[in-house]
Amino acid sequence: MIEPSLALYGETFEKVEQHLDELLAATGVRYCLLVDRKGFVLSHKEALWAPRPPALDSVATLVAGNAAATGALANMLGESTFSEQIHQGEKGVLYVESVGDSALLTLIFDSSVPLGRVKVYAKKTIAVITGLLKTLQDVPAVSFDQSFSTSASALLDDLLG
Amino acid sequence: MIEPSLALYGETFEKVEQHLDELLAATGVRYCLLVDRKGFVLSHKEALWAPRPPALDSVATLVAGNAAATGALANMLGESTFSEQIHQGEKGVLYVESVGDSALLTLIFDSSVPLGRVKVYAKKTIAVITGLLKTLQDVPAVSFDQSFSTSASALLDDLLG
Repeated sequence: MIEPSLALYGETFEKVEQHLDELLAATGVRYCLLVDRKGFVLSHKEALWAPRPPALDSVATLVAGNAAATGALANMLGESTFSEQIHQGEKGVLYVESVGDSALLTLIFDSSVPLGRVKVYAKKTIAVITGLLKTLQDVPAVSFDQSFSTSASALLDDLLG
Repeated sequence: MIEPSLALYGETFEKVEQHLDELLAATGVRYCLLVDRKGFVLSHKEALWAPRPPALDSVATLVAGNAAATGALANMLGESTFSEQIHQGEKGVLYVESVGDSALLTLIFDSSVPLGRVKVYAKKTIAVITGLLKTLQDVPAVSFDQSFSTSASALLDDLLG
């Protein structure tokens, strides 16, 4: 089964949400998505005034797929990856930036929003979120020690006679 | 067989090359490619000081493929297409902009080149090239009229007795 490469939960999740909220408020961006490299939505926020958002799950999948697909193009030009991608449409802009190795920050906003401001605030937010995600990865894996093993054996012996 | 959707030749080709040369000189861009939507290179130019270019054919194919692939994403956000795409790497930038419905202007340049200047000059060049490509499409198709038909029949009758 395909699972998100990151499990964002608890206190860290709330902190990330708070930073995304601040980013929305500071820039005037319409939707804000934190997407796993595999295409899972880790967190999303929309502006209060924003109308019904597009299908964010599908957007996340396409964004992650596109980021992976442009990797070949990046390598061809001697880059390891494109850290920042801007797709400019007639009415709006889709802005995708790498958050460490495991996630992508996706911002959707109107063409009237100044791109420079979005870039500055996005980079600030990304620096913070990268740190937060790192703490998640540093959580020690659950380890089953000798005493667990003996007590589990004892329990099984007890159960099965 | 897959063929380019545009045949760029003769006087028009020379004019396009000249405009691309001017674009390179004005912006400090490293490589400049005019790519068919199907991935064919219609014309390309590199700066005199630029080192050996990457495999431009492959870049063109990937750029065209990527432009087509992001169409789904554009539709999902209520856009007909993303007219402008910027891929920012560590050292360089890949800039792709639509030239009418049939071609893409691809610029590859170092991060030190001001993006604003590239955008302004690219838009100017694109306006001109769009006009030039339009004249190509307006060329009347070769038509075989009645007199051609009768003379061809006569020739065949003559040949085959």
